[in-house]
Parts: sequence; structure tokens; C-alpha cells
Amino acid sequence: MKAAVKLKPASKSTEVRTVPIPRLSPAEVLIRVSVASICGTDVHIYDWDAWAQARIKVPLIQGHEFAGHIENVGSDVTGLKKGDYVSAEGHIACGRCYMCRTGNAHVCKTVSIVGIDRDGAFAEYLKVPASNVIVNDPDLPPELATMQDPLGNAVYTTTNANVPSKTVAIFGLGPIGLMSVALCRAMGAGRVIAVGHRNKYRMDLAKTVGAHSVLRSAEDLVDRVMDLTAGEGVDEVLEFSGSEQALRQALAIVRPAGGIHILGFYTKPVTFDVSEMVTKGVSIHGIHGRLMYRTWYQMGGLLRSGSVNLRPILTHKFPLDRYGEAMDVMRSGDCGKVAFPMEV
Amino acid sequence: MKAAVKLKPASKSTEVRTVPIPRLSPAEVLIRVSVASICGTDVHIYDWDAWAQARIKVPLIQGHEFAGHIENVGSDVTGLKKGDYVSAEGHIACGRCYMCRTGNAHVCKTVSIVGIDRDGAFAEYLKVPASNVIVNDPDLPPELATMQDPLGNAVYTTTNANVPSKTVAIFGLGPIGLMSVALCRAMGAGRVIAVGHRNKYRMDLAKTVGAHSVLRSAEDLVDRVMDLTAGEGVDEVLEFSGSEQALRQALAIVRPAGGIHILGFYTKPVTFDVSEMVTKGVSIHGIHGRLMYRTWYQMGGLLRSGSVNLRPILTHKFPLDRYGEAMDVMRSGDCGKVAFPMEV
Amino acid sequence: MKAAVKLKPASKSTEVRTVPIPRLSPAEVLIRVSVASICGTDVHIYDWDAWAQARIKVPLIQGHEFAGHIENVGSDVTGLKKGDYVSAEGHIACGRCYMCRTGNAHVCKTVSIVGIDRDGAFAEYLKVPASNVIVNDPDLPPELATMQDPLGNAVYTTTNANVPSKTVAIFGLGPIGLMSVALCRAMGAGRVIAVGHRNKYRMDLAKTVGAHSVLRSAEDLVDRVMDLTAGEGVDEVLEFSGSEQALRQALAIVRPAGGIHILGFYTKPVTFDVSEMVTKGVSIHGIHGRLMYRTWYQMGGLLRSGSVNLRPILTHKFPLDRYGEAMDVMRSGDCGKVAFPMEV
Amino acid sequence: MKAAVKLKPASKSTEVRTVPIPRLSPAEVLIRVSVASICGTDVHIYDWDAWAQARIKVPLIQGHEFAGHIENVGSDVTGLKKGDYVSAEGHIACGRCYMCRTGNAHVCKTVSIVGIDRDGAFAEYLKVPASNVIVNDPDLPPELATMQDPLGNAVYTTTNANVPSKTVAIFGLGPIGLMSVALCRAMGAGRVIAVGHRNKYRMDLAKTVGAHSVLRSAEDLVDRVMDLTAGEGVDEVLEFSGSEQALRQALAIVRPAGGIHILGFYTKPVTFDVSEMVTKGVSIHGIHGRLMYRTWYQMGGLLRSGSVNLRPILTHKFPLDRYGEAMDVMRSGDCGKVAFPMEV
Repeated sequence: MKAAVKLKPASKSTEVRTVPIPRLSPAEVLIRVSVASICGTDVHIYDWDAWAQARIKVPLIQGHEFAGHIENVGSDVTGLKKGDYVSAEGHIACGRCYMCRTGNAHVCKTVSIVGIDRDGAFAEYLKVPASNVIVNDPDLPPELATMQDPLGNAVYTTTNANVPSKTVAIFGLGPIGLMSVALCRAMGAGRVIAVGHRNKYRMDLAKTVGAHSVLRSAEDLVDRVMDLTAGEGVDEVLEFSGSEQALRQALAIVRPAGGIHILGFYTKPVTFDVSEMVTKGVSIHGIHGRLMYRTWYQMGGLLRSGSVNLRPILTHKFPLDRYGEAMDVMRSGDCGKVAFPMEV
Repeated sequence: MKAAVKLKPASKSTEVRTVPIPRLSPAEVLIRVSVASICGTDVHIYDWDAWAQARIKVPLIQGHEFAGHIENVGSDVTGLKKGDYVSAEGHIACGRCYMCRTGNAHVCKTVSIVGIDRDGAFAEYLKVPASNVIVNDPDLPPELATMQDPLGNAVYTTTNANVPSKTVAIFGLGPIGLMSVALCRAMGAGRVIAVGHRNKYRMDLAKTVGAHSVLRSAEDLVDRVMDLTAGEGVDEVLEFSGSEQALRQALAIVRPAGGIHILGFYTKPVTFDVSEMVTKGVSIHGIHGRLMYRTWYQMGGLLRSGSVNLRPILTHKFPLDRYGEAMDVMRSGDCGKVAFPMEV
Repeated sequence: MKAAVKLKPASKSTEVRTVPIPRLSPAEVLIRVSVASICGTDVHIYDWDAWAQARIKVPLIQGHEFAGHIENVGSDVTGLKKGDYVSAEGHIACGRCYMCRTGNAHVCKTVSIVGIDRDGAFAEYLKVPASNVIVNDPDLPPELATMQDPLGNAVYTTTNANVPSKTVAIFGLGPIGLMSVALCRAMGAGRVIAVGHRNKYRMDLAKTVGAHSVLRSAEDLVDRVMDLTAGEGVDEVLEFSGSEQALRQALAIVRPAGGIHILGFYTKPVTFDVSEMVTKGVSIHGIHGRLMYRTWYQMGGLLRSGSVNLRPILTHKFPLDRYGEAMDVMRSGDCGKVAFPMEV
Repeated sequence: MKAAVKLKPASKSTEVRTVPIPRLSPAEVLIRVSVASICGTDVHIYDWDAWAQARIKVPLIQGHEFAGHIENVGSDVTGLKKGDYVSAEGHIACGRCYMCRTGNAHVCKTVSIVGIDRDGAFAEYLKVPASNVIVNDPDLPPELATMQDPLGNAVYTTTNANVPSKTVAIFGLGPIGLMSVALCRAMGAGRVIAVGHRNKYRMDLAKTVGAHSVLRSAEDLVDRVMDLTAGEGVDEVLEFSGSEQALRQALAIVRPAGGIHILGFYTKPVTFDVSEMVTKGVSIHGIHGRLMYRTWYQMGGLLRSGSVNLRPILTHKFPLDRYGEAMDVMRSGDCGKVAFPMEV
């Protein structure tokens, strides 16, 4: 099969070549990929940054966002069959530990991740454990179905904040932040304030998918949010930017007894005023992955509602052969989600 | 002032006449009514049914749904002033009991209700305690603001079911049921199934405000819901009909671990299969009034979102002089909400 | 091995005889039973009542409450080994359905139950799927470890009511109701009111395990509870009796905004006043089984606290050979939990 | 009346002298103090630290922890009368803002605090608004009733962590931390690990009130907690120390999906690893004051349970005349709670 293989422990070094189709264990399924899409994590691996150097073993086929059809099932698999239209949760959990047995498999201590710790979806085929497979709604086009992995991050963060009726600030307007804007609108948030950094392309997209206000993260941000909210501040902050400044601003604009929900990745420790958090009675929630599998079912229902304005967030498509070009677009920030349609 | 006064302990017996403007206690405010609207309870009182005979003392000015402007404030009132655009929570709670002090004033044991236990809003002026006043968003027209009392019932019931992403069945398509349909859509319910009884007018309204499916409550209802949901049943049932059949159907169509939320009033005891409820792990929630005042703030946010399709539910307006005619329309069921604009 | 085998589709008809040791599938483990104990369900099967006739296929080895040691593991089993001291969740769920994938495997629609739908623990050995095994705390004696299955029912019901600080009424003083009394005390319930029916033995046991008050379910019960609670009623009712009268009394004594949690099994539909439930804003929760596996971990923590007074509830032990005698004691009601020590 | 009056904006400067009995507004009550007790905040004021200099206006009678009897009620007060045995919530909230109207009066933006912003309880009499009064259980001795204000902080923090069955670490063994140890035991925490700093007196008290383990906050703390918990870490951390080291250790020892609940006051910003918090899916909750008035009712129930080992935490009593001496004992740390019995 054709696959984009990262060959060397170095920046870039990915080549599209022909490799063997994966062989199945009894509890696995083989999926023919229709569309795959690029996560920010894929750029870190492609660029071979410090995190990637510590975690990744080459050769590796990256990619954990995809939609496709089952081509074959292992001997122990029940309830799935050739032709099923599917995506998959990329976190492969142990199933035996306390986390896994109490609804928190997403923070299983021995998790292995598709496209990071084992070969992934930037290929014509990939294999995943049957337990991780999600059967997609046939009405959901593959181009949107591939976005369910990051959409699930956004759904988990957004539902954790219980947004209906609330005033919500969203920091960080990458694809997941943009998805959260669309989700807040679909769930009836009273006012959605999107906060971007420097990228006009993404601030415009935030407006397109429904933000009531789009602000630039600048020194006067706190004052501007207070003006917009009659001095009350926001009920909830959803933080996808990974910026220390964002976290401090979040604490300043959130109202007493409000919540801050962080999915963002912080490359270094953050200094902030715990006493302000305590005096205001604010809670800060770390959000990781997607609940397995509650988030996936919630996502299915939200997509079925017809109210999630997801399509504008898919901005670019490249054939797999133009892998490096796709990575360049991601790196530029002048994009939403970037996808590889695998079938022509 | 002009007011519709129920004069005698008998059916109808209401006359529009001139009466003194209410005199304020120190903690009360006087409100000039812009629009008032009719609750089903008002029909019960007008018709002098068994419940009304046991509860109501005449003479009485009915009406607890309204919007207007403050005309005057009592000597102890702070934070409100002449000209403020307001509505009010009609439940006047004691403020001292366990319920009142723990966020459950809506079930205060010694509650008194505007328009039921004291004079209400079917008049040019009414008085209410300052603590019960809600300052309305200036962008919310009085015709919609008067609907906040029943909308609050719908908001409390619907938020109690945490509907985003879920498949929801709504039994009973009176104004509150219709509002709940609109709310479920505004909050991103995955699928909204509205169940009416015999009234085509209201079933059409349910479609107008966004129901994905509108079904008739008939013998095959359970089968039809199961067909619509691929045999899974619904996640939540919102029950506004007060019908024993509805409650039994609710239990049959709700999925394991789902919820049933009842605002409906039942005129007699109901027989149902508790073991089915237990085996399925289902919860049934009795919903009364509106949380004081969390529900009002949630409602404000939902209205501000711009996503609640409320306007089609206001179907009729009458001048106060045509009081009996308005009650007749309510009794017919061929209506949504019926209002009395007081200012011309 | 020695086992008590129900041989015929008729009352009693159980004989202790020698049968083959179960053969393992790859994902199962074989357990040598140290102690097993009798559930009320076992009496229904032994007596061959209407429910048993509809559900049970003979021959059957009953018994789903037990503790023992792993004797052997199937070829696919990891993380468990010969000698491990274990009990097991008796509900074998499909693992693929919506319930199973969202933390509600206890209400999986295709559940199979150990000792009911397949051979169980009234034998020297039984087999269960490895995924259902719970590794016991070595400090927990087998006589108490065998009680974890019903204790789990009590833990689920009691934690669902969030009892710390609350006034709680417990209806039904069989082993699970008695365990709930002990749990309420261990979790700091403010006042525990145990309500028995006619059985003095069990009412005395309720006192022994910590009930602040023990009352008889009689016509004046509501008045007596109101006297004990200064007219406020109770915060939560835990209903284990399966009696229609209990459910009506529960509704009368629960305070506004309180909760009723039902584990009891009702042999016929119940008639009750839904409007009272709605007007008071009360919720009724059906409780089934044990959360898989959150409840088991909660139970482990509660037992480790040292505060659960469980031992007095184990009142009788019989060798397996005196099976019928043990069933007779269960049927008399003059007992707590009745156990079969299998090792001598 | 006799009162301890802080006279000057300087350290110490408090004298016991005769001053007028407070005069009541219509909504206030006058209380004859039976016992008052010293909060850490009182030491800050007495010592006139930076916080006190910014907040406090002299002359001031300090003290917000007390129990006593109503001596007189204002003209508008209902439901309270001379002779009632009472304590009071010290946070006087506005009652009109969003926080106050949605169950979060404890974080009202315009709060005024008894003994800080107005005269308090280190006197024979004090006045408070009737709405803030709590009627005490007659069986609760004044020496314990005076401790309800800090006990309420501990109850709010501890109930926020939902401790039954859980493994809990408690950092900071001042009176509130010690109360939390006692509360965790009363609510059935599976294992309570108390972490002190340097004060042996308080570490011994932690053992007395029920900690399963008492550890010293030192470099090897994380390893020791991991050893005690078989490498799993703790479910919840309750942080009362205000130490940056404690917060970092909390994050290291809390298990994935666990919670950290902070009541401690931090004198400066804290640096910590947000990505660790996010990757583990941990939530951090700022806790302030006591829920008005849910926490007070929860506290009443917990005290009534008889399971809260509170008495050992009251370690010292002084007559009001020995005010400075009492402050010295507080400052030494070799104490639990220090009280002023006012009646002899």
C-alpha cells in the first residue's frame, strides 16, 4: 500500500512509498482510509521537536484522524464487518487499570496512541483494535468524519463547561478552538467571545463559525471583555492556546464561581495567582483526550442535530504525495483543518 | 386603574372594572404592566374547578405572566428605580426556611403566588416584592418578556435533562411543551421528538419551532419511537402532558440509565411499573416552578444567544376588555400563548 | 468437584453431587471458592417462582456471591494469576453496546448473570470472564468478601443519595438494607431512620449496625418520622422493601427537593401520586446492580476505612451439604446474610 | 460592655475596655456572646501585616467565630427571638447580585465581613443581620458551636471533594486542616493522609482526630505517598497550607482524573506545571468561605451524626483580658483552636 513514512529521527524525512499492508491480530480490524487529516501533534513529529525526539520511534506512519471502511476483521472480532463506515479513537488503553475500569480510560497510565506509538492513518490502510472503532453515521461525509478526533477534544472541553445559556470566552483559534466556537453556538451559549492571537485568517474563521465577538489577545483584552459583559466577566473560559498570558487573562475575566477548562499544551511551567483563584472560588479543569466513549456518542448526537457549523473549518485538502506542502500550510497557521483524501 | 377582577366564587364571573392602584409596603415595587399573558392555571381559576375552589379567595385580579416598567418603589428598596424594564418571579418565598436558604426557594413550604394568592397582572398596575423583580434585557420585546414565567418552567425542565447531543421526547405540546421543543433545538439536542395528543394546531407549531419529528400519542407510539431511534429509545423524556398514558409510554421508550422529567400536573394518582424503572436504572424527576433565580439567569442567556425560536409560540393577543374571549381561545387548545397588551 | 445442582424445573429439587470442574475459554479464569453466600434471588430460584420459571434453565449451579482464589487462567488472560484472592462482578456485559461504552454496563441489554444464566458459585469451583474479576484486599476475610456483591448494591444506592450530613430513611431491612444502614453511618449521615416491617430479628440488627432510630412500617409511620425530624421530613429515602406502602410513605416523608432511591423489586405495578412528587420537586431513582466497576472501587475504599460495621450482618453459616436448611433460614427472615464456607 | 478594641493602625495595640453596646438597625439582632474563638485572620490583623494595613479600619472589635444567645431583635426581624441559641455566618452579602441570587453569596462582590469590616465578637455583645443568624442545635456546646465558622470552611472543602471511600491527602494542619481530617474520617474516606510541615504538636493532633497516616512535608513526600498508595496516588488533595511546595507535591501525588481543593491563602504567585495537570486530567478547585447556607446545614447534620471528632481541636481557652497571650499561643502554632469564653 502507499504510505507516508517518517524514516529518520530528524526533521521532515518523511517519504511516500509502498509498504506492506498491516497484518491483523485476532482483536484488530483493518481499515481502508477514505480521508485522513493532520493534527498539530503531527507537525511536532514532522518537525522532530524535543517532545517528538523523546517519544517517537522511527520508522513511523503518522496520522490518527481518519475515516474509512473496514476491509477485514480479526478472528475474534464480533459486531463489525467488512464495509462498515468507521473512524476510531486513537488512544489504546489497557482495559484493566483503575482508570479504565471507572470510565477514565482516556487517562490510562499505559496508553498507546495510533500514529504516535504505532503506525497510523497517513496510508491507504491502517489497523486498530476493534474496541476502538466508532461506526459513523452514513450521512456524515468522510471529510467531516475524519475531524471527529479533534472535534472530540472540543466536545469534551465544551461539554465539561456546560455552556448552554452561558457567556464563554475561547482562547486559541486553531482547529479545536474553532470547533469549540461552533459547538458553543450549537449548544446555546448566551455569548461566545473568541480570542485569537495574531492570525487574522483564524479570527475570520471564528466569526464564520459563529463567534459573537472576536478579540485579539492583547494587553487591553481584560478591559474589553469586561466592557462586553457589563463588568460581570465570563462564566467559563475554554483555553486552547497554551499561553501563560491567556491563563492569567482567563483568571482575570472569569466571574466568581466560574470555570476555566484547559486543553492547551504548555511548553513550560506557568506562574499565576492562586489566591485570586481561591478568593473568587474558581475551578480550573485539565482536559485530556476524549472520554471513551461517552464523548464520541455526544459528538454523534451533536453532529446529528445539524447545528454544528463544522464545514468551514476544513480549509485545505492535499493528495498524500504533497505531504510536506500540507505540513507547511499547517505550520503557517493560515488554515483550519488540513486533510488528505486517500481515495480519488 | 383598569383591572380584570374575578368577583365571585363561581365559573367565569370576571369583570373588567376600575379599582384602586395597589399601595406599596416598604419592600415592594409598583409596576405598570406593558403586556400580560394567560397561563393554563388562569383558565382553571376562571373556570372555578375543584383546585380553584380549594385554593382561591375572591375578589382576585389574576395573572402572573407579565412585563412592564417600574412606576414606583417602596421606601426600603435599593437597586431598582422608576422606569426599569422588568418582569418578576411570581413565587414569593419566606426567605428563612431550609429550602429558601439552600437554593430551593421554589419549593418553599409557605410560598404565596402572584395572581393566585394575591392580586396579579391582569391590570394596569401590580405590586410585587422587590426581591422578586427581574430586570429585563432592553432588547427583549415585552411580548416575549411576558412569556418568561412559563419559559422558565421549560428552561428548568430542559436544563435538568442536560439535553445537548441527546435524543429527547417531549410529551404535551401546550405553550410550555412547545417552548421546550425550541429550547432543545437551541441547546443542540441530537433529535427532538414532539408528542402531541389530538390538537393539530399545536403539532404544527411543534414543527415550526424545530421538532425533528412530531408524533401523535397513540397506541403505536412506542413502536414508532423505537423505529426512529434504531431500537435504542430516547435519552430523556420531558413530560408536560399530565397523562398517565404518557408516563407509561415514557418509561417504555426511555433507554436504560435515561431520565424522565415531569412538569405536568396529574389530576389523579398514576399506576406504573416501578420494577421496569428500577431494572432499567431510570430516574424520574419532579420539576416545579423555576429555580430562584438561577433559572431566570439561564433564560436570559438563552434568549441572548438568539437561538430560541420563541416568537411563533405567541399566537393571539386580545385587549383586556375581551377577557372571556381570550379564555375561550385558551380553552380551545387552538393556540400557543395568548397575551393581553395593556398599553396601546 | 462438589456442587449444589438444581436439577429440575420445580421447587427445591437441588442436590449436592459431584460434577466436572468447568473448562475455561481463553478469556476466563477458574476460581476455587472459599465462601459463597445466598442472595434473595437464590431463594426465588430454589422455590421456582414465576420469575424463575420464566428465566432459569436447568440443570443449574446457582450462586453469584463468593470469594476465593484463582486456580487457573485462560490462555488470553493477562494481569491475573493462580493464587490471586478474588471475588467477581456477576453481570457479564457485552462490552460493545452504548451502555457498556458509556459507563453503564450494569444495564447492558444483553447481560448474562453468573449463577442465574450460567453456572455459579455454590460449588468448589466456578469460572468467570477475567474482565469481571475483582482482586480483593488481603486484609478482607473471605466471609466478608463474599458479601461484596450485595454490599455493592447497597453502596451504589447509598452513594447515589450522597448521604454525608443528611437525614436518611431506609425501608426494608434485609441484608442489603442493613448494609445500607451501616454504610450511612460510615459516611456521616446526620440521622439514620431504619424502617422494618414485621421482623424483630432484623430490626434489632439495624440497631446493632448503627441506626439512630428503628421504626415499624405501620400506619402512623409518617407521623413518627415527622416527629423525629421536627416536621421537616427526611432528605433521602433508600427503598429496599419492594412495598407499595413503602413508596407512598417515602413520598410523604421526603422533604421538598429530596430524593428517593429504589433498589427494591416490585412484583406488581404501583399506584402513586405523581403530582405530589412534582409539586415537591422530588426525584425518584431506579438503582440496578453495581456500577462496573466504580462501585467496586468505592466499596474497597469504604471497607478499608474501617468504619463499615459489616460483620454483624453475616449471621449464619452452613456447609454446602445443608443447602435446603440454609434456604429455609433465608426464607424465615430471621437472619442477615447466610453463607456456605466451602473450605474446611 | 467589655470588648477587645484594636485602637491604632499598628501591631498589637488592642486593649480590653468598656464601650457602648451596639445599636440595632431594623433587620439586625443583638447577640450576647457565650464563647468566641480566634481565626488566623485575627492574628494577621493583630500583627497589622500588609494585608491588614490595606483592609482594616480602626478602631475595630475583631472576631467572627462565636456562639451566644439573642438578647434583642430589630423591628423588622421575624422568626428569631430573645434567648435563641445562635451563631452566625460572618459574610454579609448584598442579596441582589448575580452571585447572591444563584447560590453563590459567599463570593458576592460587595461582601462585608463581621470582625473585619465591622465590629465583631471579641466583646460581650455583637450585632449581625438577622439573615446571617444560624440557630444552633441545643445539644451542641458553645465551645464547639463557636468553631462552626472554620469548621464550615473545612466542610465546604471536604464535601467539595466528595470523600467517602476515597484516599485523601490533607496539606496544612492548622485548625481547619485538622477539622478536615476529622471530617474525612466521619464521612468514610478510605485512607486519610495528613501532611504537616514542622509542627509536631499539630501532627500529633492529626493522629488524635483520626488520620491513618501523618507525614512531614519534605523532599521525599511524593515517594512516601506513592508507597502508601501502591503507586496509584491519592484521589483528592485538600490543600490548606498556602505553600507552593504543597501545590507542586499535590499535583505529583494526585491520580489521573483526581481533584485538588485549595482553601489555603498564598501570599505570592505560584509556578507550576499546567501541562502535567492537563495530561492527567486533574481539576483544581478554589474554595472560599462557606456556601450560604447549604454548608451550615451540612455542618449541622455532620455534627448531629456524632461522628466528627472535633473536641480535641479546641486546645486553649483564655479570658478576654488575656487577649495578647491568646494571640501569642496562636502565633506559636503549638495549639489547635484558641477560644475566649465570655461568660463565667
